[in-house]
Amino acid sequence: MGVSAATARLAHARVVNVFTNELVDGEVLLAGRLIAAVLTRVPGGYPEAEQVHDLGGALLRPGYIDGHVHLESSLVTPAQYARCLLPRGVTGVVCDPHELANVAGEEGVRWLLDASARLPFDVWVTVPSCVPSSPFETIGGEFGPAAMERLMDDPRVVGVAELMSFSDVIAGDEEVLGKAFLGEARGLRVEGHAPSLLGAGLQAYLASGVASDHESTTLEEGREKLRAGAFLMIREGSVTRDLDALMPLVDPRHGDRVGFVTDDRLPHDLLLEGGVDLLVQRAVKAGADPAYAARCASYNVANHFGLPRRGAVAAGYFADLAVCQDLTATPELVFKDGVLVARDGVPLEGAPGGARWGAGEAVPAALLRSVRPARLSEESFRLSAPAGEARVIRAIPNQILTRSETALPTVTDGLVVADPTRDLLKLACVERHGKGGGVGVGLVSGFGMGRGALASSVGHDHHNLMCVGATDADMLGACSRLRELGGGLVAFEGGAVLAELPLPIGGLLTDLSLEETRDLLDDLDAAARALGCELPSPYMALSFLGLAVIPELRLTDLGLVDVTARRLVPFSAGA
Amino acid sequence: MGVSAATARLAHARVVNVFTNELVDGEVLLAGRLIAAVLTRVPGGYPEAEQVHDLGGALLRPGYIDGHVHLESSLVTPAQYARCLLPRGVTGVVCDPHELANVAGEEGVRWLLDASARLPFDVWVTVPSCVPSSPFETIGGEFGPAAMERLMDDPRVVGVAELMSFSDVIAGDEEVLGKAFLGEARGLRVEGHAPSLLGAGLQAYLASGVASDHESTTLEEGREKLRAGAFLMIREGSVTRDLDALMPLVDPRHGDRVGFVTDDRLPHDLLLEGGVDLLVQRAVKAGADPAYAARCASYNVANHFGLPRRGAVAAGYFADLAVCQDLTATPELVFKDGVLVARDGVPLEGAPGGARWGAGEAVPAALLRSVRPARLSEESFRLSAPAGEARVIRAIPNQILTRSETALPTVTDGLVVADPTRDLLKLACVERHGKGGGVGVGLVSGFGMGRGALASSVGHDHHNLMCVGATDADMLGACSRLRELGGGLVAFEGGAVLAELPLPIGGLLTDLSLEETRDLLDDLDAAARALGCELPSPYMALSFLGLAVIPELRLTDLGLVDVTARRLVPFSAGA
Repeated sequence: MGVSAATARLAHARVVNVFTNELVDGEVLLAGRLIAAVLTRVPGGYPEAEQVHDLGGALLRPGYIDGHVHLESSLVTPAQYARCLLPRGVTGVVCDPHELANVAGEEGVRWLLDASARLPFDVWVTVPSCVPSSPFETIGGEFGPAAMERLMDDPRVVGVAELMSFSDVIAGDEEVLGKAFLGEARGLRVEGHAPSLLGAGLQAYLASGVASDHESTTLEEGREKLRAGAFLMIREGSVTRDLDALMPLVDPRHGDRVGFVTDDRLPHDLLLEGGVDLLVQRAVKAGADPAYAARCASYNVANHFGLPRRGAVAAGYFADLAVCQDLTATPELVFKDGVLVARDGVPLEGAPGGARWGAGEAVPAALLRSVRPARLSEESFRLSAPAGEARVIRAIPNQILTRSETALPTVTDGLVVADPTRDLLKLACVERHGKGGGVGVGLVSGFGMGRGALASSVGHDHHNLMCVGATDADMLGACSRLRELGGGLVAFEGGAVLAELPLPIGGLLTDLSLEETRDLLDDLDAAARALGCELPSPYMALSFLGLAVIPELRLTDLGLVDVTARRLVPFSAGA
Repeated sequence: MGVSAATARLAHARVVNVFTNELVDGEVLLAGRLIAAVLTRVPGGYPEAEQVHDLGGALLRPGYIDGHVHLESSLVTPAQYARCLLPRGVTGVVCDPHELANVAGEEGVRWLLDASARLPFDVWVTVPSCVPSSPFETIGGEFGPAAMERLMDDPRVVGVAELMSFSDVIAGDEEVLGKAFLGEARGLRVEGHAPSLLGAGLQAYLASGVASDHESTTLEEGREKLRAGAFLMIREGSVTRDLDALMPLVDPRHGDRVGFVTDDRLPHDLLLEGGVDLLVQRAVKAGADPAYAARCASYNVANHFGLPRRGAVAAGYFADLAVCQDLTATPELVFKDGVLVARDGVPLEGAPGGARWGAGEAVPAALLRSVRPARLSEESFRLSAPAGEARVIRAIPNQILTRSETALPTVTDGLVVADPTRDLLKLACVERHGKGGGVGVGLVSGFGMGRGALASSVGHDHHNLMCVGATDADMLGACSRLRELGGGLVAFEGGAVLAELPLPIGGLLTDLSLEETRDLLDDLDAAARALGCELPSPYMALSFLGLAVIPELRLTDLGLVDVTARRLVPFSAGA
C-alpha cells in the first residue's frame, strides 16, 4: 500500500501471468522475500523503493520449479546443482532422493534436506517409496514405512516418490498401497511411474490414489494418462526425451494438468542445455503458448504439490523471479526470495541479503564411509565354467533395457575368462555396504573393450560396485581404487588408474563443481574409448547393468536376475 | 482389473472429462464408493457388474461442488438442503457458517458438521473469520482464534472463511492477519471477500495470503482479480448475480482458476433454479465450453480447497456422479459415493447402501434456546424526541446498502412515534442472546407499511431481533411471538399473528422442508403486503438493517451505527 518503501521495484516489466496465460505490462514491488504488488503503474505518493531495476520491457516470469528430479544424476551436491540452475532461472526442484535412500536410508534423505536448507534454491523432497527396488540385491539403507513417516514431518517433504512397482500396485499389494496411503493421509501427493501402462491397468494404478506420471513417451500414452486424471509430467531427461512427442498436449486448455520435469540429467546436459528451463525454451520454439509453457514449469508444478506461494508473479508469492528478453533466452537477472542471485547467466557470490552457496553442510558418516566392500582378491572375480552355455547380458547402446543371451564361454583351467576377441567381458557386482561382501560375477557383451576395466560405485538402484573388465587383475585394481576413493568412477589398466572421478558422498556425489565433474567424465569416457569401448556412454550403461527391475537380464551382488521371471538364475544357461 | 465384480457399471456413457475439457465415450466401473475405472470399453473376461446402468449415450458428469455457501440463507437444515440439491446433481458444498457462529460460536459450527456428517451429501466447512462483524453489536457466540484452531482439526474443515474485513487486512491488522495465518499454517485455504477492491488495495489484500474472491460484479473487476492470482469464484446468488457480467472469463484458458458459487440462495430460488448447477446451465446456454463449465463447479473447486478425490469422473475418485442428457438439463440419475440417491429430480429414500436423509442430529441447547430477549414491554420501544432532526435509515429496494437521512420526527407526548403517513416507521433491534437485553430503537423509511409490525430473528450478522412497526404495541407483539417460537419470522397486527415461520434452530433455521418453508415465506410476504409494505423482499431488507459493516446507517442492539465513520451515533441528527 506504499506505507513503507518496497525493497525493490521492477519497473517496465512485461509480466508472464500464469493464471490467465497472458503477458501483461506492469511494475512489480518486492517486500523482502515476497512480492508485495503487481501494478499497472506505481501510484503517485508511493515511497521510493530501496532498489529500482528498470527492465525496459523485458519479460518477468516466475522462477521455474522442476517437478521430478533425481538430483543424484547430476553427480554434484545440491549447492553445485543450484549454482548451475539458478542462473537459468530455475529456482526449485522436487527431488526423489532414491539413490541416497538406497545407500544411506533415512540419513541419506536427511542429508539432502540439510545440505539444501540454506541455499538460495528450493529443494522439496518426495519420500522414496521403492527401496530396495527388488528383493534380489543388498542395499545400504533401511527404508521402511517408519522412516517414510518420520520424514513426512519435514515441511519440505511434499509427496511419496514414484511408485515404480506399478504391477504390485495393480495387484493390490498391501505393503505398497500402505506406502501410498501414508502420503495421502497427510495430504501429500503420491507420485506415479508407469511406463506404457494403458487401459485397465492404468485405471487400476490411478485408482490407488497415484496422482501423476512422468513416463509417457507417445502422444497416445500422454493423452490417455491426461484424460485418466494423472498430472501429466512431460519429461526431457538426458536419455529419455519426451517433449517432442507430447507437444500437442502443451495446450492452455489443459490448465493445471501438465507439468515439466527432467527426471535425470547428466552434468554435460545440465551445463549445455540446462534443466527444466530447457522444456519451456523448446516448447516455445515449437509454437506453444509462451505463458502456458512457463506455467507448466512453475504454477502447475507448485499447484500439484501444494507448494504455498510459489510459481507465479503475484502479490503474496515468494519473489522467485527471472528477467529475460524472451522465454527462449537465458535470464539477465534472477531473484530468489527477493535477492538478486544471478546476472547474465552467472551466479552472484555474496549477494545482498545473504544468499549462501555454502561448502555444504556436514556430510554424515553413513554417506562419507559408504563404500566398504569386503577385502577383494583376484579370486573374488573367479567364475567356474558351466557344463555348457552360459547366460550373457547384452548391453544395448543408448538403452536401459538389456537382452538376455547365451554363449559358450571361453574357459581356461576350468575357469571362465573374459574374451575380448568375442566381445565377452567379465562383469562383477561387488556388495559395498559392509553387509557381507557378496560378489556377483557374470559375462557381458556389447562393451567391445579390448583391455582394462571400468568400475563405478553408481550402480542402480542398490549402488553396489559395478565393474566390467578384460582381466580379473584390472577389475581388482579398479574396485580397489573405488574403495580408496570412497566411491567414484574409475578406468584402470595394467596396475594404473587411467582416469577417475571421486564420488565420496555416498559413492554417488562429488564435492567438485559441475564443470570439473564434466571434465573428469570426459576423461573417463576418453579412457574407456582408449580401452576399445564402443558404447556411447559406457559408465551409464555399466551403472544400469545391475538394475533388477528392468528387463531382461541383470547382475547384482546376489547373482544374475531374470527380471521377466522375477528370480535369481544361475550362470549356466542349462540350469 | 476385473479381479472382482464391479458394484456398478455405467455403460454407454459420454463422460465429461474435466481434465481435458472433452466429452469422451466410455464405460465407468464403480467399486463401492469409488470409481474403479473409466474405460473405452470393458474388456472381455471381466466379471459382470452387480448392477448395470445403460446410459444410452447420456452425459456422465462429476457431482457439482458449490465453492462458497452460507447454508443458513436456505433457512433449512443441511438434510433438507441436500434433499433439494442432490437431485440436481450437486453433491457437495463448502459452507461458511458465519450466522451459526454468531449465534452459538463453536457449538453452532460443530452442529453443522454433525448434522451433515452422515448425509449422502458433502458439507465442508470454512471457519468463520469475522465474528462478530463489528464492535457495535452483541452476539451469542464467542468465536476467537482458539475456537477456530480447534475446529481446524476436523478433516472437513478446509479453510478460513471470507476475510470480510478487507480494510483491516490491508492496514496490516495483526489480529486479522493472525486468523489468516492459522489457516495457512495448516495448509488450509484463506478465503477472500473484497467487493470492488482493485489496484494497490487488491494487491495488498492478496499479499496477505488470501486465495480467492467471490465478489466480482464486473468483467473488469473479475479480470483484474484473476490476473492478480485470486481464485475467481463467480457467484449467482439470490440477490447478487454476477455470471452474465463475468461470462467471458469462463474460458478453458483459465484452467483451474475459476470456480462457481452461490453464496446466498433463498428457498424460492433453490427450488425454482437450483444451486450451483444453475451456473453451469446458464454458462452452457450462454455458449461456454460445456466440459469447462462443469469443471468450474467440480474439479476447480475441489482443487482449490484440496478436497481429495473429488470433482472428476476418474479412477480413484469418489463416485459422485450425475447422468443427464445435456448440461442444461436436470439429471436422470445421481450417484453419491457410489449409491443411487436421486432419479429424475426426485430424491430416493432408503437408497441401497444406506443413504440416510435423517431427521438430523440432536440440536444442542445453545441453538435450540438461542432466542432469549429480556422481558419486553411497550416501553422497550420508547424513543425520546430529539431537539431537532433525527437520523433515519432509508431502506432501498433490492439493495443491501442503506442511506442515512434526517427528518423531523413525529412526536406525541415527548416521544417519537411511527408515522406511516410520512413513511416513517419505528425500527428496533432487540438483543436476544441473553446478554443484557439492550434494545436499539430508531426510525426507518422505505417500507411503506401503514399498520402492524414485522419481526425477524435473522438479523445480520449478530442476529438480534429486528423489528419494524407502525405501533409499539404491534412491535411488542411481534417480538414476543418470536420469543415464544424460539426464533423465526413474524407478521403481526392488532394482537394477532398474521403469518409466521418458526426458526427454532438458532433463530436461523427451520426443521421444515424447503417447500413448506417457501410456502410460509409466501404467506409472510403476502401479510407484509397486506400491511401496506412496498419493499419487494421486506424480511430480507429487515434482516440487513442491522448489518453494521455495510454503509451507510444501521441499527444494532447498541444503537445507531454510522458505518462510514465506524462509530455509534445518537438518534438526534444534531448531536
